[in-house]
Amino acid sequence: MKAKKASETLAISTKVVLPNDTNTLGNLFGGQLLAWMDVIASVSAHRHCRRVVVTASVNNVAFNAPINHSSIVTLEAKVSRAFNSSMEVFVDVYVENPVTGNKFRSNEAIYTFVAVDQNGGPIQVPELIPETQEEKERYTAALRRKQLALILAGKMNPKDANELKKLFVD
Amino acid sequence: MKAKKASETLAISTKVVLPNDTNTLGNLFGGQLLAWMDVIASVSAHRHCRRVVVTASVNNVAFNAPINHSSIVTLEAKVSRAFNSSMEVFVDVYVENPVTGNKFRSNEAIYTFVAVDQNGGPIQVPELIPETQEEKERYTAALRRKQLALILAGKMNPKDANELKKLFVD
Amino acid sequence: MKAKKASETLAISTKVVLPNDTNTLGNLFGGQLLAWMDVIASVSAHRHCRRVVVTASVNNVAFNAPINHSSIVTLEAKVSRAFNSSMEVFVDVYVENPVTGNKFRSNEAIYTFVAVDQNGGPIQVPELIPETQEEKERYTAALRRKQLALILAGKMNPKDANELKKLFVD
Amino acid sequence: MKAKKASETLAISTKVVLPNDTNTLGNLFGGQLLAWMDVIASVSAHRHCRRVVVTASVNNVAFNAPINHSSIVTLEAKVSRAFNSSMEVFVDVYVENPVTGNKFRSNEAIYTFVAVDQNGGPIQVPELIPETQEEKERYTAALRRKQLALILAGKMNPKDANELKKLFVD
Amino acid sequence: MKAKKASETLAISTKVVLPNDTNTLGNLFGGQLLAWMDVIASVSAHRHCRRVVVTASVNNVAFNAPINHSSIVTLEAKVSRAFNSSMEVFVDVYVENPVTGNKFRSNEAIYTFVAVDQNGGPIQVPELIPETQEEKERYTAALRRKQLALILAGKMNPKDANELKKLFVD
Amino acid sequence: MKAKKASETLAISTKVVLPNDTNTLGNLFGGQLLAWMDVIASVSAHRHCRRVVVTASVNNVAFNAPINHSSIVTLEAKVSRAFNSSMEVFVDVYVENPVTGNKFRSNEAIYTFVAVDQNGGPIQVPELIPETQEEKERYTAALRRKQLALILAGKMNPKDANELKKLFVD
Repeated sequence: MKAKKASETLAISTKVVLPNDTNTLGNLFGGQLLAWMDVIASVSAHRHCRRVVVTASVNNVAFNAPINHSSIVTLEAKVSRAFNSSMEVFVDVYVENPVTGNKFRSNEAIYTFVAVDQNGGPIQVPELIPETQEEKERYTAALRRKQLALILAGKMNPKDANELKKLFVD
Repeated sequence: MKAKKASETLAISTKVVLPNDTNTLGNLFGGQLLAWMDVIASVSAHRHCRRVVVTASVNNVAFNAPINHSSIVTLEAKVSRAFNSSMEVFVDVYVENPVTGNKFRSNEAIYTFVAVDQNGGPIQVPELIPETQEEKERYTAALRRKQLALILAGKMNPKDANELKKLFVD
Repeated sequence: MKAKKASETLAISTKVVLPNDTNTLGNLFGGQLLAWMDVIASVSAHRHCRRVVVTASVNNVAFNAPINHSSIVTLEAKVSRAFNSSMEVFVDVYVENPVTGNKFRSNEAIYTFVAVDQNGGPIQVPELIPETQEEKERYTAALRRKQLALILAGKMNPKDANELKKLFVD
Repeated sequence: MKAKKASETLAISTKVVLPNDTNTLGNLFGGQLLAWMDVIASVSAHRHCRRVVVTASVNNVAFNAPINHSSIVTLEAKVSRAFNSSMEVFVDVYVENPVTGNKFRSNEAIYTFVAVDQNGGPIQVPELIPETQEEKERYTAALRRKQLALILAGKMNPKDANELKKLFVD
Repeated sequence: MKAKKASETLAISTKVVLPNDTNTLGNLFGGQLLAWMDVIASVSAHRHCRRVVVTASVNNVAFNAPINHSSIVTLEAKVSRAFNSSMEVFVDVYVENPVTGNKFRSNEAIYTFVAVDQNGGPIQVPELIPETQEEKERYTAALRRKQLALILAGKMNPKDANELKKLFVD
Repeated sequence: MKAKKASETLAISTKVVLPNDTNTLGNLFGGQLLAWMDVIASVSAHRHCRRVVVTASVNNVAFNAPINHSSIVTLEAKVSRAFNSSMEVFVDVYVENPVTGNKFRSNEAIYTFVAVDQNGGPIQVPELIPETQEEKERYTAALRRKQLALILAGKMNPKDANELKKLFVD
């Protein structure tokens, strides 16, 4: 199973915030953005492993600033690290200034997908090769996040989470 | 500002998984569930503070088992802890066996909302009073999660996160 | 086939009126509310009989007051009476005052569902046991409504509709 | 205010039942049909009075037969009688045999709309002139239905509902 | 295979422009209108051949004037000419003045559909008989449009497009 | 007003064909694809002129092959030529083989947008600079298409359409 570069998993989707995407304040409804991110992240995970993938978890999504009605929103998803049968995917969300065209990053989300066979059982995925500085940082941090998830799920003893422990103890 | 009991913030929504809620495997689409949870969690947060609330983050959502097309799904949201202007909300998702009526918990999600005024600025919310055993456990753990979120956002030194540190060092 | 209590058939769904639920006046679109009520009423009927149910008729829905955009709307459905293979379901719709949290009943609807087998043929459902005062009143009135429906459909002679006749003749 | 002929209020809408219109059996979802009927009935009522109209009630809708996925469905709405500020509208739903093109009437629904001014207050509408045999029958029966609705709402004494009483007593 | 009159293929759909049909200017979103036209045009093509039809091309759609939120829009589709297995369909879109009820034609679109068998292969369709003046003009022009489409697709030499050539050379 | 390169107007959107995007054959519904193309094409036109743009026409869209349910579809839109206040936009639609990842071009569409001011009046847009071979060919052909559109609209005499005439006469 041949390893893949992070860049090969890039998936992009540009949207316009239309009335039925908005909440009661007239801004992009958080739940709609979560759904958009889920779809594009699943495409990225699929491009990594070329198998059916299902959402395993949404690890962290921050909503820093409201996104106005009629904004142009671009979602960029890229696999940050592959484990046995799971893939962590980062989704960066950019909003475009309509006049200048400058983009600012409004959201960052981390989703995890699992590759499954016809019966829904997990199957192995290729390794991921990070190349850029950002890809490498996210790759390294992915292990800490995985340990944290295992601890929170009661499947790992905190004392054994070496990567994570360093943060608190050194 | 009068403190409120967790039970006063309960919000319930029962759904049927219809064709346009499903993914390519015919199961409930992860993004759709995220959107449903966002809405009912926002109702719970609103019931706590009676102000406009906006999604601040989705801290953790696990998708343990696929939810089949035509399932009856019940979402129960309850505020787990209130901070200055933010509220942590737990969403428990139950799927009902169509023949026996037995429910099993298929998903658990943690959302955070912020109460805002007309200009979108944060405003204070009442304290939350946990009563049941589960409410108390979630209340206590909410502080650890908040410290963790601050650390991940680079806004707190891990050494100062006393609650969290205990997990790794004691 | 064991009779069930009305309270066992309760189904609740809380919604927020979002832009794509509104009509041209910015209020909750009547058709959308009818669709929401149909779903939650079908869950209630299903909980009574644990079989596939299909909408047989909508007997009466009154829209007394407009429901504003961004309102929190709670639908409560409960079987009011079971006949051979059909179930009458009441849906009460409550709108919540955003500041005080007080609810008022904005709508009341009566739907009828039929339990069907795999071929779509009607199958028997359990009897319903009303307990509260309101449940009992609705249970009694359900018979009058059934007689009325049969008369309107030309399947019963008005002279034989004893329950209904009393209203006019006594 | 000039009276209008029933035929001038005819509104037609032809739909194809697509996947997101279906219920868990793959047939047209009752709630979706209710929403479609509400829209086309409102157009008919609007054509009668040329004012903003809001749904006042759904008096009776029967779902006699399931409508299959991918059916061609035609809704025909026509005002059956106008009262002071309200209009009763009949919606006939026809399903078209894909091979022969023959249509059969699958549903019949009765909606009531009220014409409103900018403040939502009721305003007067023109009288309706029925012409065909069916239009005349529906026109006459509309009065009985109105009396029935008033009785059911506790706003009329059954003894005073002369039109309706005849059914039971003569 | 019996030829059919153009009038037998007429399909009508009346819509109300609701919030989720609008673009960021509050007018009917072009893409939504394109989708509505596609559905009603497919019904018209289906009525001509009584077979499954799939969209082959959208030849020309002009958006002359914005259609406001809450407008009543009527789409009328009619087959303009049948070829071997394809049918050209005209969709005329009318917007109704809410006060006077006068309609003006806001859009005209030309779609082409192909009749297909179970494997998706093209199958023959009946000939079309134009009757009115407009039907005849559209019938004649359909041949020029077909030649043009073949030229643009590189499947016909412009020199052989006799009907079309006349426009430029005579 | 500074001319822009075609490459600066590129807009990309990747979609997954979900159940509610499909027609009665289970393939991507033509109308849905038209709506998707309209949105992404409007983003491209907006990126060219940084003004509000409205759809003026859909000149040509071919649907060559059905796109299956659950396909990954990528839409790429790029302005092909700018005129006074209008922009012609090409949308290329690619479908990705789920196993190999190879893409094939399933559709090509040509949309025209107009830049408008607050009153909906047309305003000038920058010129477009084509760079690649394909950009240059589309740029040149855009003039022929514009002449053709003017002729079809009866706003140009075919004899004056020099670019177009060459096709038939030389």
